[in-house]
Amino acid sequence: MTVQIRKLSTTQPDFQKQLTNVLAFEEKEDESINTVVANVLADVKNNGDKAVLEYTRRFDRLSVSTGAELEIPEAECEAALASLAPERRLALQAAANRVRKYHERQKLSCGSDGFTFTDEDGTSLGQKVTPLDSVGIYVPGGKAAYPSSVLMNAIPANVAGVSEIVMVVPTPDGARNELVLAAAALSGVTRVFTVGGAQAVGALAYGTETIPSVDKIVGPGNAYVAAAKRRVFGTVGIDMIAGPSEILVICDGTTDPDWVAMDLFSQAEHDEMAQSILISPDAAYLDRVDASIRKLLPTMSRREIITKSLSSRGAMIHVQNMEEACEIANRIAPEHLEISAENPQHWANLIRHAGSIFLGRFTSEALGDYCAGPNHVLPTSRTARFSSPLGVYDFQKRSSLICVSEKGAQTLGEIAVELATGEGLEAHARSAGLRLQK
Amino acid sequence: MTVQIRKLSTTQPDFQKQLTNVLAFEEKEDESINTVVANVLADVKNNGDKAVLEYTRRFDRLSVSTGAELEIPEAECEAALASLAPERRLALQAAANRVRKYHERQKLSCGSDGFTFTDEDGTSLGQKVTPLDSVGIYVPGGKAAYPSSVLMNAIPANVAGVSEIVMVVPTPDGARNELVLAAAALSGVTRVFTVGGAQAVGALAYGTETIPSVDKIVGPGNAYVAAAKRRVFGTVGIDMIAGPSEILVICDGTTDPDWVAMDLFSQAEHDEMAQSILISPDAAYLDRVDASIRKLLPTMSRREIITKSLSSRGAMIHVQNMEEACEIANRIAPEHLEISAENPQHWANLIRHAGSIFLGRFTSEALGDYCAGPNHVLPTSRTARFSSPLGVYDFQKRSSLICVSEKGAQTLGEIAVELATGEGLEAHARSAGLRLQK
Repeated sequence: MTVQIRKLSTTQPDFQKQLTNVLAFEEKEDESINTVVANVLADVKNNGDKAVLEYTRRFDRLSVSTGAELEIPEAECEAALASLAPERRLALQAAANRVRKYHERQKLSCGSDGFTFTDEDGTSLGQKVTPLDSVGIYVPGGKAAYPSSVLMNAIPANVAGVSEIVMVVPTPDGARNELVLAAAALSGVTRVFTVGGAQAVGALAYGTETIPSVDKIVGPGNAYVAAAKRRVFGTVGIDMIAGPSEILVICDGTTDPDWVAMDLFSQAEHDEMAQSILISPDAAYLDRVDASIRKLLPTMSRREIITKSLSSRGAMIHVQNMEEACEIANRIAPEHLEISAENPQHWANLIRHAGSIFLGRFTSEALGDYCAGPNHVLPTSRTARFSSPLGVYDFQKRSSLICVSEKGAQTLGEIAVELATGEGLEAHARSAGLRLQK
Repeated sequence: MTVQIRKLSTTQPDFQKQLTNVLAFEEKEDESINTVVANVLADVKNNGDKAVLEYTRRFDRLSVSTGAELEIPEAECEAALASLAPERRLALQAAANRVRKYHERQKLSCGSDGFTFTDEDGTSLGQKVTPLDSVGIYVPGGKAAYPSSVLMNAIPANVAGVSEIVMVVPTPDGARNELVLAAAALSGVTRVFTVGGAQAVGALAYGTETIPSVDKIVGPGNAYVAAAKRRVFGTVGIDMIAGPSEILVICDGTTDPDWVAMDLFSQAEHDEMAQSILISPDAAYLDRVDASIRKLLPTMSRREIITKSLSSRGAMIHVQNMEEACEIANRIAPEHLEISAENPQHWANLIRHAGSIFLGRFTSEALGDYCAGPNHVLPTSRTARFSSPLGVYDFQKRSSLICVSEKGAQTLGEIAVELATGEGLEAHARSAGLRLQK
């Protein structure tokens, strides 16, 4: 199979329709998954540890007979960190430090201390910001183990001040990933359990004898995990359910085409549904990147996945100018946006919708994925129009504060009586009315 | 039917179990509603105006034949405002002004301008905050029309800087509510359409020839509207799906029992599933409030709803002291929490989870519902453990900014290569590696 990337131009008459086709992605709902997940969740809710142990024996082939056997002690995570090859340990520590530093800035910028102000009647109003009490972090196990995902999910919770951070990670056939445990040790994770799948989500939502219930569950997982998170939403908070990962590269033609080709690969290698799109006003440059793709692709170990991803969901779009490129980026609202151009900030100012914006030719998406500092959990499938990267704010919530003075109760009481009467809510009106001076 | 409120004491051995029973609320999923809604949404997505008009004729009995007939021009909202009785118009304006003032403070506290900082390598990192482009506000129509809901949903969007705010409100049999239209004129609503139900949600999510698609849909509605919002989530953002409304009053025994009884009524009058709970360390005081309830209830026009609500879901809880009352409040994480006590701020400092906290005996919930300033759209059913009042932040989102310098690409590149290799993602490693100086 040779790679064949779709080529579009904004001058073709059906461009908008073609672009819509490129972006179209229908998440298929699998009823059989939904049914399995509903049963697992109900079982965990009703039978606690017993159910969790049974599913863990069945799906992960672990011989466990008590809940306590599911817990990995903190010392084991510390030992995993200490046992890493020094260059890998230092890399993980450096990444953790940078992620922590960025999120500490984010916390400051969020007005974590809330506010209060007092009006002329002596009534004071405010907003109190508090961290969640407890959070569950789901970490996929098995072959595709991503320690960076542990850092990106746990550190913002830790920075927010969440006191209990419970990580769950399946260990099929007992295989534990040292990098994942080491990342937990660096991220402020307080407890670790070797459970996965819908049973792990159920345990975190409802609690069992061994696994504590939490207030919010975050982190990536397979279709069963995603379905379970959807179902427990409301009982606990959840993060966004992510679609396939995407990158949009806007290039003015000044970046080495090999670099851009490899950036497109770095997205495409995730899976066949991942999406890589390149936009440029320079048609000859698009051809040069195409040539780089054909040159480099045979050298990639994951070339089959990359070929399928680029051929089925990739695109190169020729635009009239960089302004038009930015307009299209706003329409696409990509998860990752690379502006690989001279004076990238100039173009970034035109961008309203993107999860993360990578500025300049040295800022490959991979640097952001691992260690630049900002979060790599980002809104996919055009949801950057209305949602944000995972952040400290996802682990905080606000309460309004209202302290009405006796004088304020007169002013406000008259307004409330009038409006409550207009809405036909008598008890509301009388409740405010009782505070009015006779 | 006489009112019979459950009485609990923290000294009874099964108190925790009893409290769990009081709080238990299972939202019943109605499959027939789900099926109807799925069909309506698909029809609106495929057939646009034609479908919306058909459902509007069928469900709201409007004789409309073109999309344009569904729009209420801005001038008509302005005229509705001008036509109100002066005291009602002034009350609505005063409420709108206070809500706007509070939310402007909230915007300031949210770090709306984002941040950037530069590290020692010249790499700059930041966060950009932008408003959503467009928002849809669902407003219920018919008899229970709530202009305060228009203010509370539209003003935060307007303050956030959302440029298109589209209100939909059904007008069964053509009945338009002047207060609702007047509230729209005061809240920065840009367009108004007389559609409701799942068809309105579908129109806002997918867009029709007449009704523009939006990025997020907020506002209360019946079971069909709630089911439709759940289904379009992902295509657009949505606010929380609210459960029944709740109030928790903590009183140290110093507030006039009639006042507290009426505050409990003001929640209970919403509907039979609404929940009113009173906690006090003073057993005699609980009896006095019980007596006030029996005295005042016969005088209430909505006494039947109040009686059912208090009898089926209400409770009075006797505690050992105010500290214990605050602990229980944190467990309940109520939508509305009144601390009707001397030195209320002292107790508020012990509260971690509540949607809105009403401090002191003059701060009846009704004042907050209408005009104190903070939002009245609040997290219900214990979700205040992980979510916040509706606010300006719900109409803004963030994008990360990363601009790696050439020098930074060396430091970060080595870390990324190491970690990407550890995760088996070759293209990620090579994408970072290409930026390393040879």
